[in-house]
Amino acid sequence: MRWPFVSRIIGILLVFMGMAMTAPLACSFYFKDMADGGITKSIAITMAAGLALIIFSRKFEEDAYINQKEGMTVVALGWTAIGLFGALPFYFSPEFISFTDAFFESVSGFTTTGSSVMIHIEGAAPSLLFWRSFIQWLGGMGIIVLSLAILPFLGVGGIQLYKAEVPSPVPDKLTPRLSDSAKILWMVYAGMTLIEILFLLAGGMPLFESVCHALTTLPTGGFSPKNASVAHYNSAYFEYVIVVFMLLAGINFSLHYQMLRGKSLAFWKDTECRFFLGLVLLCTLVITWDIYGSVYDSLKDAFRYSLFQVASIITTTGFATADYERFPGLSQAILFACMFIGASAGSTGGGMKCARIIVCFKYCYKELFKLIHPRSISHVKINNTVIPDHVLRSIMGFLALYMLLFFVSSILLAGMGVDMLTALGAVASCIGNIGPGFGTVGPTENFAHLPSFGKWLLAWCMLLGRLEIYTVIILFVPEFWKK
Amino acid sequence: MRWPFVSRIIGILLVFMGMAMTAPLACSFYFKDMADGGITKSIAITMAAGLALIIFSRKFEEDAYINQKEGMTVVALGWTAIGLFGALPFYFSPEFISFTDAFFESVSGFTTTGSSVMIHIEGAAPSLLFWRSFIQWLGGMGIIVLSLAILPFLGVGGIQLYKAEVPSPVPDKLTPRLSDSAKILWMVYAGMTLIEILFLLAGGMPLFESVCHALTTLPTGGFSPKNASVAHYNSAYFEYVIVVFMLLAGINFSLHYQMLRGKSLAFWKDTECRFFLGLVLLCTLVITWDIYGSVYDSLKDAFRYSLFQVASIITTTGFATADYERFPGLSQAILFACMFIGASAGSTGGGMKCARIIVCFKYCYKELFKLIHPRSISHVKINNTVIPDHVLRSIMGFLALYMLLFFVSSILLAGMGVDMLTALGAVASCIGNIGPGFGTVGPTENFAHLPSFGKWLLAWCMLLGRLEIYTVIILFVPEFWKK
Repeated sequence: MRWPFVSRIIGILLVFMGMAMTAPLACSFYFKDMADGGITKSIAITMAAGLALIIFSRKFEEDAYINQKEGMTVVALGWTAIGLFGALPFYFSPEFISFTDAFFESVSGFTTTGSSVMIHIEGAAPSLLFWRSFIQWLGGMGIIVLSLAILPFLGVGGIQLYKAEVPSPVPDKLTPRLSDSAKILWMVYAGMTLIEILFLLAGGMPLFESVCHALTTLPTGGFSPKNASVAHYNSAYFEYVIVVFMLLAGINFSLHYQMLRGKSLAFWKDTECRFFLGLVLLCTLVITWDIYGSVYDSLKDAFRYSLFQVASIITTTGFATADYERFPGLSQAILFACMFIGASAGSTGGGMKCARIIVCFKYCYKELFKLIHPRSISHVKINNTVIPDHVLRSIMGFLALYMLLFFVSSILLAGMGVDMLTALGAVASCIGNIGPGFGTVGPTENFAHLPSFGKWLLAWCMLLGRLEIYTVIILFVPEFWKK
Repeated sequence: MRWPFVSRIIGILLVFMGMAMTAPLACSFYFKDMADGGITKSIAITMAAGLALIIFSRKFEEDAYINQKEGMTVVALGWTAIGLFGALPFYFSPEFISFTDAFFESVSGFTTTGSSVMIHIEGAAPSLLFWRSFIQWLGGMGIIVLSLAILPFLGVGGIQLYKAEVPSPVPDKLTPRLSDSAKILWMVYAGMTLIEILFLLAGGMPLFESVCHALTTLPTGGFSPKNASVAHYNSAYFEYVIVVFMLLAGINFSLHYQMLRGKSLAFWKDTECRFFLGLVLLCTLVITWDIYGSVYDSLKDAFRYSLFQVASIITTTGFATADYERFPGLSQAILFACMFIGASAGSTGGGMKCARIIVCFKYCYKELFKLIHPRSISHVKINNTVIPDHVLRSIMGFLALYMLLFFVSSILLAGMGVDMLTALGAVASCIGNIGPGFGTVGPTENFAHLPSFGKWLLAWCMLLGRLEIYTVIILFVPEFWKK
């Protein structure tokens, strides 16, 4: 491990962070919301820390290739550092009393989770609300780079599945310069954000709120500048616009790229995308049937609220237009299961990812097939490509780790005095980067009342989920630190 | 598939069932409880069906070896048939109104689950209560044969782990005669039952109740002839006796056999046994700490109730001495996790089994190790034996299927109007063959109020869990039925 190398990259990240903070500063000047002092302090601290790290590691040779260990350390420590320094604007604002709360909000932002500890959101300074949305947007950008460019290169998780399909976004050096195709993916991301802003504006949403919502839809983040989230507007138009963009954000971004290159059937040809959209449709219809009559008197309303909650949970966005805790048990159980499934691999969404669920199904079927034909040789395929054995093992290991960490973290959270349903719901929501959970952290409540240690634990769960578990957990394996 | 062969074996099973029913008949004569009419009818129907099947398949050649497909069909259909015919004595008694309830109680008995739909247990005829306990004992016997003798032979599940260690209990023909070592395992089982009866009698429990409790402790069943289960006696002596026998029943029976052959360190040398007992101790201590002060004022009581609930849930017995739903969240979450872990492979307990959990942990660690040393070749070992790759794959497939079926069944149960916590708790409890769940099917409630379809679904879950999933689910794979 060449620490100067690692610390230099983290230093560069922090300098970028400091530069990113000038956006809310400008916002603060425009709205004259008195938050400029806190943001200026944050910029100063972040920049100073970043520059100090760069200077401390100035002896590092420019041409060195990064190795796998260093890459993982950079990813895990870099996101932690970003979470810590991104918390400063919150910490310096009157809305946040403790650094724990500020850190929770910041990590929830960067990991695009969307769980909040803010109680009076609408009373906060606009620049703070903008920062809250902006970090989700930056986090989402980071995810695209991570999941399509960096993690496959590090050999982590099941994303290798798509390694071959994405047009060479694998940089052979981890430098601030990224490959051209990653740039195109970013432009897709930014372009879709812009289009969503225009659609929301067209429906009459104020500019500031349109920007905030679009900035948190595309990264499947889910922070809203309104206390009641999207329910505030009670507008079918806004809801359907947001649903469309949530679903787009939940699809592998390399498919968007293929679409732009003229492959118009890309969505349809992709197994995972068909599975993802099919599942959204199926869950929506079942929940519509379940809540029609029992919660909503009109079929149109039942469909509208069902579609929104399903799209919001399965894409792991977490916007709310209805309190699903008041839905019947079936709808709740489906949404709980959706929290684990999550969106597509290579999208900005979290959870286990549809691709892994498909592989898991096929794996189980293969095992049953083997019992029937013990001497047969069968492979698991996705999109007509055989999944190599080591990727298959890695995916099954990921799913097992996901469930193990879910149970262990739930037990730990319950050990801090949280009731069981809330513990299970909060951990499922945070590991899956969703936002709202069940129990006392449902869609109309927030995470403010949880104990401090619980907030640190959940922030850790968010990072675990966001960085595909392996990258974080590996730093705790003693073998990793041996020479 | 040679159906005459399959139906002949099921016929033989039913004849044995009919013979087993003479025990409650004798009990009925002794207690003069007026249940003899119903039991006689049950014997007649069961015997008639069994003989009809044998006669129908009389052309089957005596020397034919059973193949894997036939073996699986026999196991899955045989247990279903036993559940159906074993329900007759319940159905003919005034305590049961519907066949659904009788079938639920019967399957819950034979699979050693212990979930009950009986509301006024103490008001029922003693012979019926005896039948209820006796079928658990028979079921437990069946499990030992299944898990140590038949399932490894069929190549099912992770039990192959122990194939090599168990002293040749693998019969090469599925005939009513079983190998000598299986006989010895049965004698261990019967002997331990007898010793428990003596211990309970020594503490002053009436003979009938001692027999009933011992008959349901060793198979980790959990039916009790008392409405309040073991809590009825409020006796520390009875509870500690039952705890000891529950734990013995949760240990691999081949280890008991080795102990009897003079290998006194067998328990200690076995990785799974150490893990199992260590986990019981750990969970007991944490729950003691959690409920001391908050639920119980004395440390002695906190330990006593903690140990009993942990042993009862993790061994999947399901006796109750306290309402764990009134424990704090931590204790509840630990018990919920214990429902999934379960007892040892090769024991009468259910759940995922400790051996598979250990393998899963080691599998995950191996995957992390592979990320650190990509070119390394590492194996998963248990008891210093390398687990072959195909067994490893089978175990991971089992765990994935277990979780998939848990989620799907929970959603289906919730779809019948059951609230989410109850649905999750009931399915976890039934797939794990435990007994009580969470929500409205907790340790002080029962399953009577669930909808009929829900009872059939849960009975199916019990069979799935009991027969290690693969054996049941494979019958629904179309490939299985192709020539």
